Amino acid sequence: MVHTTVNAGQHPAPASQGRPGRWLRRLAGVVLTLAVLPLAHAEDGYELWLRYRPAADAAAQAYRAQVAQVVAPAASDTQRATRDELSRGLRGLLGRAPMLADAPTAAGALLVGTPASLPSIDRLGLDLDDLGEEGYLIRSVRVDGRAATVVAANSDTGALYGAFHLLRLMQSGQPLEALDLREVPKVGLRVLNHWDDLNRHVERGYSGQSIWDWHRLPGWLDPRYTDYARANASIGINGTVLNNVNANAQILTAPYLDKVAALAGVMRPYGIRVYVSARFSAPMEIGGLDTADPLDPAVRRWWQAKADEIYAKVPDFGGFLVKANSEGQPGPQDFGRSHADGANMLAEVLAPHGGVVMWRAFVYSDEEPDDRHKQAYTEFVPHDGEFRDNVLVQVKNGAIDFQPREPFHPLFGAMPKTPLMMEFQITKEYLGFATHLVYLGPMYEEVLRADTHAKGPGSTVAKVVDGSLEGHALSGIAGVANIGSDRNWSGSHFDQANWYVFGRMAWDPSVDARTVAQEWTRMTFSTDPAFVEPVVEMMMASHQAAVDYMTPLGLHHLMGRGHHYGPAPWVEGGPRADWTSVYFHRATKEGIGFDRTTSGSDAVSQYAPPVAEVFNDPARVPEEFLLWFHHRPWTSRVASGRTLWDELVHRYSRGVGEVARMRETWTGLDRYVDPERHHQVERFLAIQQQEAQWWRDASIAYFQTFSGLPLPEGEAPPAQSLEYYKSLEFPYAPGDTQ
Amino acid sequence: MVHTTVNAGQHPAPASQGRPGRWLRRLAGVVLTLAVLPLAHAEDGYELWLRYRPAADAAAQAYRAQVAQVVAPAASDTQRATRDELSRGLRGLLGRAPMLADAPTAAGALLVGTPASLPSIDRLGLDLDDLGEEGYLIRSVRVDGRAATVVAANSDTGALYGAFHLLRLMQSGQPLEALDLREVPKVGLRVLNHWDDLNRHVERGYSGQSIWDWHRLPGWLDPRYTDYARANASIGINGTVLNNVNANAQILTAPYLDKVAALAGVMRPYGIRVYVSARFSAPMEIGGLDTADPLDPAVRRWWQAKADEIYAKVPDFGGFLVKANSEGQPGPQDFGRSHADGANMLAEVLAPHGGVVMWRAFVYSDEEPDDRHKQAYTEFVPHDGEFRDNVLVQVKNGAIDFQPREPFHPLFGAMPKTPLMMEFQITKEYLGFATHLVYLGPMYEEVLRADTHAKGPGSTVAKVVDGSLEGHALSGIAGVANIGSDRNWSGSHFDQANWYVFGRMAWDPSVDARTVAQEWTRMTFSTDPAFVEPVVEMMMASHQAAVDYMTPLGLHHLMGRGHHYGPAPWVEGGPRADWTSVYFHRATKEGIGFDRTTSGSDAVSQYAPPVAEVFNDPARVPEEFLLWFHHRPWTSRVASGRTLWDELVHRYSRGVGEVARMRETWTGLDRYVDPERHHQVERFLAIQQQEAQWWRDASIAYFQTFSGLPLPEGEAPPAQSLEYYKSLEFPYAPGDTQ
Repeated sequence: MVHTTVNAGQHPAPASQGRPGRWLRRLAGVVLTLAVLPLAHAEDGYELWLRYRPAADAAAQAYRAQVAQVVAPAASDTQRATRDELSRGLRGLLGRAPMLADAPTAAGALLVGTPASLPSIDRLGLDLDDLGEEGYLIRSVRVDGRAATVVAANSDTGALYGAFHLLRLMQSGQPLEALDLREVPKVGLRVLNHWDDLNRHVERGYSGQSIWDWHRLPGWLDPRYTDYARANASIGINGTVLNNVNANAQILTAPYLDKVAALAGVMRPYGIRVYVSARFSAPMEIGGLDTADPLDPAVRRWWQAKADEIYAKVPDFGGFLVKANSEGQPGPQDFGRSHADGANMLAEVLAPHGGVVMWRAFVYSDEEPDDRHKQAYTEFVPHDGEFRDNVLVQVKNGAIDFQPREPFHPLFGAMPKTPLMMEFQITKEYLGFATHLVYLGPMYEEVLRADTHAKGPGSTVAKVVDGSLEGHALSGIAGVANIGSDRNWSGSHFDQANWYVFGRMAWDPSVDARTVAQEWTRMTFSTDPAFVEPVVEMMMASHQAAVDYMTPLGLHHLMGRGHHYGPAPWVEGGPRADWTSVYFHRATKEGIGFDRTTSGSDAVSQYAPPVAEVFNDPARVPEEFLLWFHHRPWTSRVASGRTLWDELVHRYSRGVGEVARMRETWTGLDRYVDPERHHQVERFLAIQQQEAQWWRDASIAYFQTFSGLPLPEGEAPPAQSLEYYKSLEFPYAPGDTQ
Repeated sequence: MVHTTVNAGQHPAPASQGRPGRWLRRLAGVVLTLAVLPLAHAEDGYELWLRYRPAADAAAQAYRAQVAQVVAPAASDTQRATRDELSRGLRGLLGRAPMLADAPTAAGALLVGTPASLPSIDRLGLDLDDLGEEGYLIRSVRVDGRAATVVAANSDTGALYGAFHLLRLMQSGQPLEALDLREVPKVGLRVLNHWDDLNRHVERGYSGQSIWDWHRLPGWLDPRYTDYARANASIGINGTVLNNVNANAQILTAPYLDKVAALAGVMRPYGIRVYVSARFSAPMEIGGLDTADPLDPAVRRWWQAKADEIYAKVPDFGGFLVKANSEGQPGPQDFGRSHADGANMLAEVLAPHGGVVMWRAFVYSDEEPDDRHKQAYTEFVPHDGEFRDNVLVQVKNGAIDFQPREPFHPLFGAMPKTPLMMEFQITKEYLGFATHLVYLGPMYEEVLRADTHAKGPGSTVAKVVDGSLEGHALSGIAGVANIGSDRNWSGSHFDQANWYVFGRMAWDPSVDARTVAQEWTRMTFSTDPAFVEPVVEMMMASHQAAVDYMTPLGLHHLMGRGHHYGPAPWVEGGPRADWTSVYFHRATKEGIGFDRTTSGSDAVSQYAPPVAEVFNDPARVPEEFLLWFHHRPWTSRVASGRTLWDELVHRYSRGVGEVARMRETWTGLDRYVDPERHHQVERFLAIQQQEAQWWRDASIAYFQTFSGLPLPEGEAPPAQSLEYYKSLEFPYAPGDTQ
């Protein structure tokens, strides 16, 4: 049911939460006629950044003249999707549906299409050569002496992207005068990875169930699938891997492929190809073979036939994502073969159909006692040059596992002959789940801008990933999706920004996080600078805040076992050392930190020498990675002049303090936001503050048992005993591996 | 995102489904200005039957005069909830917010409250004595010579119920003249049972996850909880058991009780008490005791302390629901004690606080080889009279397990000294999950009107359940909820009707299913008779249709093992015979059916003699229960003159045919319904038709292997081989036990 807005600022929130009480008491005893307003739906976040609320009066007036007429073909599914979106968007922004025409007949025409789809674009003789298959331009032009705007591309999909860009300009209140924009994606494959199981559980999902209702596919196509495709297309995402990398071979059976095909049909008009995670042992599990050896002819034939079957159902199928010989998943090593053998066998059967293999490098050996940081590099670098040209190796941003902050993965720059995809995590497995407000833009930016020095200064991770450093034809960025069945898609309103910034940075790794935050905030909440500025500040500070209250100074992997919820730096024992916290922080009476220097595990030497030298030197390593690379005495001094112990406590407290500030900022912004979303964000910030405090208190209580040092002056002691924190259990925390 | 309605009949559905294609093609080449319409949210079913869309013009005009002014106090949470709902409802129905006043000052005043809460009601001197704590009256009166309407009760909750009733009259287009209604619930405890696990899985749930977001409780109170409470209050439901009867003791730990208390705070203003399912062995699992023997003093003390702890947090806590010694759940028999011993121990600790125990009678022994139909009776009847007076024994409607159709449970009427609660299933575990349109009103009605003859003719199940047959002070009806996180709550639009009719029949077991279907249809879709009449016909026929295509003529328990999806009459083997299909249908070359006559398992003798005689006689037993009680030769004749085999095939086909008719009916009603809901129902009916055909074909193919008889003339053979149907597997069908 709907919470209707009775009057500005007089919203009847749930009775139990007190607001209507106050509101109604104010009215008691007086006779009032309330304003007659249309019934309005609550803002529940479902519309994401595509809300298309009325533009501010002045802007709307200008826009109405500038977009008086829409000239856009509708002869293909993608063209229809484009014109549909323009109609929807303009109707929302300008309060009326646009005039549609098949040729410009008045001032203020908006031409959207390709030279092939729209003669009036063809006649403009635009230079579209360097736009490629997905780029577009937006330009203010004159047609027959009248002002017009053209969105032109070489493909329908390019035009669709351009239409979304134009709508974005209007949504964020930008002028439409003298436009001259050219946009070409810098990365080829911009892909979401859904870690969604076939029973709708989402591994590391904090926003409800999988949006894929496998049971009722293909008979029922939830309209939500279309809205998912729209949202992705609006930020340039052009691929989606439907199922968990911990894959189930059933996805490759005929009934499931029919379901996959149905989803592909929804995605296709929006320029999105579907991929699936393939279980390497599928030939044994569903094929009746007794091996999955990639060099076995029968195995090859099975995959060949499977690929043919898939492409018969999904002609534009994207390919396979594979997690092999990693955390118990099957892989070519089970048969004495290499990652390259496995990837190439699959690549070979996909190649004739135009498919690719995205082969994950997230591996660490069951037997190898070496620093887990080093293992992916050790395993993969020797195979550089061995992979077929339709294979990409997909590398997590850092060498451990999506920790709040990690230095860039040493594989970037170390496999020049192989296209390396970036794998970012959008879902916040280690960052407070969906409840904490943590904007990931700055983290992505930090990684993409990191300099590998692989080919001298300026060899940034972004250049490795976009293929420009080595001139690879294939390039890709993957994001582990934070999307689920929750009404607001991502579990929280602000987590939508992480989906958004992922897409924007996948399109252009050089875009900056702050600009994207501004853009998103304007589209999602309000264009009022009095709102946008503090909110963007809050977002930009939020990642550092989380790092501070969880894992400051390069600490990592201190969370609860299994579910990864909350602090548990005391985790030890169990099946393998590198699944414990103590393995990673290595706290002793003397000090704390993982020695990865040349005198320690020597992980630093996997980086190019200029990087390795800096990381190897406790005086030069960026302080945020101090304890990542160094084991340091509690009493050693850091840049602030404080001892390490004091700095650690200081940073924990600073993180908590930042959350308190965020909450205060947000609370003061209630008049800019609908009460529903304001209330939810406010409550989530309250939970975040409580949990930040818990992280700080539990961590300090624990590390103090090693340092033996008093808290710095003015620092409050933990609220509870260490035993209390250790006693907490969360058997039903969401998102755990099944 | 929103699918906006561009123009009536021109809805832009997902591009992949073809509609916008046709729509846009129609527009291509012409210049059109689309109508200027406000952006409207898609009808997604979230509002349930509380949509409050504008009343038809004529009715609205009358209503505006009749409800010109609302006089309703707002001094308590329940009063505020009441006035809030009236404001919301009247604003929607009449297009403007009502005038609020603290006393009637004009013609057309609506007075809502109690003599204590509203002086102007007190002055009317109404006779409210027999309304009890929850009843209400609605009456057209004159106040100071002016026409007015009064909704009066003895409690705030009664007034809230009355307000919902008045809104219902207006929603369904009823006149408000000369009203003189008195409503008192006939059943005391009207309770939903959520089979929701703490990880948000819902056992036998087909509508997403549990609505209870345990992880974020108590910090985040989803507004959905309030809407849930509103919906329940609107149909008189006054209790909710939050967790699965296959219970987890964790719900009784302090952190979870805080979460329970938070939910109770949301429910309280709406007259809803919360209950939890208690695991009988909790004293061992979370209490550190080495026994849960109900006669052990330490165990009693533990439960005593637990009850005190609960009531300190939830002063109006309802009590415990217990599934004990059933399907592997722990219970008093584990310690050599009886059901009465177990129930009474819990009842004793709850009694001082006003709580009750709802003790389930759904038991069948692990060891007992007797007909499962008989076992609950055998176990419980000997204990009649032994239960404390705050214990109710909760009995499923039939003796097996929520089959598409079952004769009433023989316990009804057989335990005169014990209040027996009815347990209906609202979720459609055995009725096509959420996809099939099956209105359960006729099934509930059939059971409630069944005559137990326990105290002579007219001793209906309803009179047993409402306590009137034996004069019990306590009475109750429970419904296993079909509510989940899906946007439309119940997984399908029509399944909302099952929640609705459950509530209406729990309030008054004598209300008839057709009337409720009409009421619900008017509120949920349209008041237009051209729509309401065919839809109600469709709903009324739908249960018989499902029985026909799944389990005609008294067959039962023929579904897939574990998940219960689809036909599997061939299921045999496994841990126990009475978890197989062959146990229940007993088909042989000679005949089919379970002989429960006096010459068979003698289950008939558990019914009162006049009932037993009828059930025992193949010539007199209602044909719908023929094979429930009798094993009959394939060639025996039934009432139609057909042989049993021909009749069986005929009924299977009749069921499929009825679904085809339902689909045709619905397709023709598109102009009365918003395109979103129409489309989804249409697609679901298509799936239902496909699955009905599958049920028919698989069942006929299987049973023909016994009968060896040809299909009757004109009957199409099964589309696939029996081996094909047997080969189908559904490892990820929703709702399975975890």
